[in-house]
Amino acid sequence: MTEQQNPTTMEQIISLCRRRGFIFQSSEIYGGLGSCWDYGPLGIEFKNNIKKAWWKANVQMRGDMVGIDCSILMHPQVWISSGHVAGFSDPLVDCKQCKQRFRHDTLQTAVCPDCGGELTEPRQFNLMFKTHVGAVEESASVVYLRPETAQGIFVNFDNVVNSTRKKVPFGIAQIGKSFRNEITRGDFIFRCREFEQMEIEFFVKPGADEEWHEKWLQKRMNFYLDLGVNPAHLHFREHEKAELAHYAKRCVDIEYLFPMGWRELEGIANRADFDLTQHAQGSSKDLSYFDGQERFTPYVIEPSAGVERSFLTFMIDAYREEEVNGEVRTWLKLHPDLVPYKIAVLPLSKKEELNTVAQDIFKRLSKHWACEYDETQSIGRRYRRQDEIGTLYCITVDFDSLQDNAVTIRYRDTMQQIRIPIDKLENVILNKLNGEVFSTFE
Amino acid sequence: MTEQQNPTTMEQIISLCRRRGFIFQSSEIYGGLGSCWDYGPLGIEFKNNIKKAWWKANVQMRGDMVGIDCSILMHPQVWISSGHVAGFSDPLVDCKQCKQRFRHDTLQTAVCPDCGGELTEPRQFNLMFKTHVGAVEESASVVYLRPETAQGIFVNFDNVVNSTRKKVPFGIAQIGKSFRNEITRGDFIFRCREFEQMEIEFFVKPGADEEWHEKWLQKRMNFYLDLGVNPAHLHFREHEKAELAHYAKRCVDIEYLFPMGWRELEGIANRADFDLTQHAQGSSKDLSYFDGQERFTPYVIEPSAGVERSFLTFMIDAYREEEVNGEVRTWLKLHPDLVPYKIAVLPLSKKEELNTVAQDIFKRLSKHWACEYDETQSIGRRYRRQDEIGTLYCITVDFDSLQDNAVTIRYRDTMQQIRIPIDKLENVILNKLNGEVFSTFE
Repeated sequence: MTEQQNPTTMEQIISLCRRRGFIFQSSEIYGGLGSCWDYGPLGIEFKNNIKKAWWKANVQMRGDMVGIDCSILMHPQVWISSGHVAGFSDPLVDCKQCKQRFRHDTLQTAVCPDCGGELTEPRQFNLMFKTHVGAVEESASVVYLRPETAQGIFVNFDNVVNSTRKKVPFGIAQIGKSFRNEITRGDFIFRCREFEQMEIEFFVKPGADEEWHEKWLQKRMNFYLDLGVNPAHLHFREHEKAELAHYAKRCVDIEYLFPMGWRELEGIANRADFDLTQHAQGSSKDLSYFDGQERFTPYVIEPSAGVERSFLTFMIDAYREEEVNGEVRTWLKLHPDLVPYKIAVLPLSKKEELNTVAQDIFKRLSKHWACEYDETQSIGRRYRRQDEIGTLYCITVDFDSLQDNAVTIRYRDTMQQIRIPIDKLENVILNKLNGEVFSTFE
Repeated sequence: MTEQQNPTTMEQIISLCRRRGFIFQSSEIYGGLGSCWDYGPLGIEFKNNIKKAWWKANVQMRGDMVGIDCSILMHPQVWISSGHVAGFSDPLVDCKQCKQRFRHDTLQTAVCPDCGGELTEPRQFNLMFKTHVGAVEESASVVYLRPETAQGIFVNFDNVVNSTRKKVPFGIAQIGKSFRNEITRGDFIFRCREFEQMEIEFFVKPGADEEWHEKWLQKRMNFYLDLGVNPAHLHFREHEKAELAHYAKRCVDIEYLFPMGWRELEGIANRADFDLTQHAQGSSKDLSYFDGQERFTPYVIEPSAGVERSFLTFMIDAYREEEVNGEVRTWLKLHPDLVPYKIAVLPLSKKEELNTVAQDIFKRLSKHWACEYDETQSIGRRYRRQDEIGTLYCITVDFDSLQDNAVTIRYRDTMQQIRIPIDKLENVILNKLNGEVFSTFE
């Protein structure tokens, strides 16, 4: 088997993200907060587009799925029933000499990797962040920051069945923040203490679960392929029996070829009836389902994706450095649905009369699409700035525009330029985005 | 002055939200968690639309605004510099007899309102939720859940200036969760421990601040009016000098006439250079701005809105109970941009042949808009179910549809019905949503 490697390096991505304002270190002026990140002007547009694409594919376009948005703070009993209070932990060891703390299962040596000192026996350290509600700090008031969004779905299963008309098989989808007090970190935004999940719990009749699992595997793989990820950089990895969580009947990861190697992008698990059964016991509420003929506790297929890993995947996979006329052209070949800005409006100079026309175009187009307006530096440098962030169309307003009421559109992928009447802009761009052959560019 | 009252009661809204799955109590099967709420299938669609409308008006359509998305966990020094560690607190008293705790400034009596016992002297109680990062619970590892999104913007001011080409005056906008450990609660989702803010920090040159404050007052008022809120239910309230926060030069609230009276919907403050100055001192970083001629610390206008209060406002204001043919018709006159579902596709019966046509219509339309599919109960009851959640268009597929390839569209506001060819549906709805006169309905 040949060792495959992604041609893009993490350094290239980190540098671009920092330089262009996709991602900043959290609280950077105070030295940062470990494994927490802020998303800048381009990062939030990109991230919102990823979430919209996921929501559209999994909720909006499916008659058998609804969304939900649960609070991050939940009743502490939720995490007792789910097993997180007892079992969501990493084994940690302390160095007796330098007092540093490490994750035991990732250590390569039997002695402290920092100072060579002797280590304590490993102890279990729970990864959930703890806080207190109410005015008194006592054990009765402890709540946790949710370490996953999934449990919010399970505890609302009955609410959703009763308030909608959904019948099994159907799913509940959620996008939201989760928190894990990770000790081992790194790889930029790959593993964060604060991160955003996109989770589906799809409820099926026991017996139909294996078939639905297969369907979801294909569906979720197609999501990444449809959004332009290179098929050679994606594969399924079946979990071995030994690594399966105790509640999982089967689990398959979609792995992406990150610069540091194949890593989990999304996990798709068959959780059987574990969660609903646990919560029915813990809450003494009946969470079974009656399909008109028989009563059963649904099985659950869970496709669980992360916004940050999707962000990295799409960006790494879109990153291009190519030589054009003896210069390096850096550009992002991002899917049109994902680009931070669809359009950049660029007046050739800062002259008032060009600005008036360009501002008017910006106003019209920004009603429909995210646009950037940029009026500084040479037009060549501005094209390269837009290429670098994946902007699909650059619209240049020049002095001819004042005469012919037309502008130049430059298309990112081919760098071709054509002249378009200003009053046709909306239609031309709408048709192009809707996937029609953009014959005018040929 | 006559006492004004909103014709809609909070009970009507709570009942609708609960019955139709807009809002559930958080962790309800475990007895709930105080002042935390979950948003069900309709609630999340509605909430997302509010956020989209805000983002479109304040970020997408403005050339002088960019977005950002900061982490909830930040470096603890942020909250020392901002003044929250020292001053973000409520005065609390304990009952010496029954041990209950109360907010001193909201008590009507000098003795315990529950048991009549003697109260302690008031003590300051900080409203920030505290947690610990890393593996050791010690004071050095304390971090807070942010009580507002604003500070994430201030600490990134320099990052944004350096990575974009924005020049003062410009703004940074953010939507995100904040947390406050409130003791006095209630009024449904009006005051929550976990809530979502939509905040703008708009940076201007000192001296231009008062004019920009006025502009933002109008702009933000127009936001609610443009989205259909009754002008008689909105007013400005100028803060008195005595109630101004120490950092504020001026503050004006937009108040809405909630069922419990006039209450703050949004605050629009002139924070002067307080925050940037504090963080420059706290971090020893230069956060001043050079405009090409002089160097200054920008002043800040801050329009700060809440998703939950907007949710309540739009829903209360849209709520209608009207008599139609001797029956009460409950409907939501929500703005088209805000409705959870734009369209409901309703096959007249569950017959296979109608279902095939209806499913095909659902597939086509759900590519563009959030749609519901509902095939149970009488068509009259299904219309009423859609009215109640504000759905704009009901599309009914009947047996004639199999012959004439047309369907009936019913429009929410007028209950008028017309027949439309199936292959014209996208265009008819697109034109209607774009505000063209829907002459075919007349």
